[in-house]
Amino acid sequence: MDVLLRLQELGLELPKVPPIVGIYKPVKQVGNLLYVSGQGPTVDGIPVITGKIGAERTIAEGQEAARICTLNSLSILQDFLGDLNRIKSVVKTLGFVASAPHFNYQPKVIDGASHLLVQIFGEAGQGARSAVGVSELPFNISVEIEFLIEI
Amino acid sequence: MDVLLRLQELGLELPKVPPIVGIYKPVKQVGNLLYVSGQGPTVDGIPVITGKIGAERTIAEGQEAARICTLNSLSILQDFLGDLNRIKSVVKTLGFVASAPHFNYQPKVIDGASHLLVQIFGEAGQGARSAVGVSELPFNISVEIEFLIEI
Amino acid sequence: MDVLLRLQELGLELPKVPPIVGIYKPVKQVGNLLYVSGQGPTVDGIPVITGKIGAERTIAEGQEAARICTLNSLSILQDFLGDLNRIKSVVKTLGFVASAPHFNYQPKVIDGASHLLVQIFGEAGQGARSAVGVSELPFNISVEIEFLIEI
Repeated sequence: MDVLLRLQELGLELPKVPPIVGIYKPVKQVGNLLYVSGQGPTVDGIPVITGKIGAERTIAEGQEAARICTLNSLSILQDFLGDLNRIKSVVKTLGFVASAPHFNYQPKVIDGASHLLVQIFGEAGQGARSAVGVSELPFNISVEIEFLIEI
Repeated sequence: MDVLLRLQELGLELPKVPPIVGIYKPVKQVGNLLYVSGQGPTVDGIPVITGKIGAERTIAEGQEAARICTLNSLSILQDFLGDLNRIKSVVKTLGFVASAPHFNYQPKVIDGASHLLVQIFGEAGQGARSAVGVSELPFNISVEIEFLIEI
Repeated sequence: MDVLLRLQELGLELPKVPPIVGIYKPVKQVGNLLYVSGQGPTVDGIPVITGKIGAERTIAEGQEAARICTLNSLSILQDFLGDLNRIKSVVKTLGFVASAPHFNYQPKVIDGASHLLVQIFGEAGQGARSAVGVSELPFNISVEIEFLIEI
């Protein structure tokens, strides 16, 4: 099924491509692999979900942050590929969760990204994954996710 | 030499395949590369070594945690491949160590994984590696490791 | 342009190959990809920039740390390849910044590495990137960076 149609069905639309905040490429291709730079929960480059999960933010807010990271990554991929239907599978997800002391549900937070990818791509949206807690993220965002994509 | 025989020689046996705790695949293959999802020191999915290294846990306990992460990953690979002898080399290890303030021996902890892989696979068990300290890991596990494997 | 000449032009020279501190290979090759082990700001294996960015260290010191990580990685690659001109591009940078509480400029710090790579390799030096803050790094180094390189 067409990815943009599927997003529409889910009531979602691709956000604007996030601005670049540093010296890097949003996507780098080697062979059939696309390395996507770590994305955060930003809209037009402005962080919209900030603060530590488990203190300032709930798990549900963390999941929403993970969803926005994912939509930003898809927007970048659409810009790079011209057609999201060229995505064959999600290979790997590395999720960093800004965690308050004693917050230990990082996988639940990153499930916000993984659930969306499965809704869009079906089984192909499910890849390998690691989820860890970190003390600080850029611009105080609550979640940062990097994806490895197969085309 | 046969990997399972080698494990036996070392007095080790593969644990049961860890249950999945989130929306991801334990292993994702692209070409001859296997991306293994981050594993922790769990038995039957229950964390057995928890708490920060350098406070609640010693370096030796951290090394044992890293060994268990590795055995869980091998169990997942056995389940995926059917035959661990198909492993050609360990390409990359990314080790996250739940670290107490001022604990700075993350490489020593992750050596617990690397030493075991060299015991099993010889020089092929030694790949590139990064080891870092993080503030919180899922379910309060002391170590999380993700492997990239070549078949 | 020749990479060593370019380094000379920039007033830089390759440091000695850093000693190995643990059980790993400095570089692991699979096909045309080189996975470089995480490097720190060390000279002859001795950490030269330690402590948390945002407290004991400034952003500028963090950027200098990131530059040294990069030069150490290039030294390792020169040792492995025999000729840095074989590098086709920088695929991916994963930067870990030892961060004081409330320090949120990790991308600025890792730009120290990325800027140098662009100075040396031009556009090919710019790849995908993630930058995160962590609570502790090995030997109290301020920055650890791992690179994925295409030859």
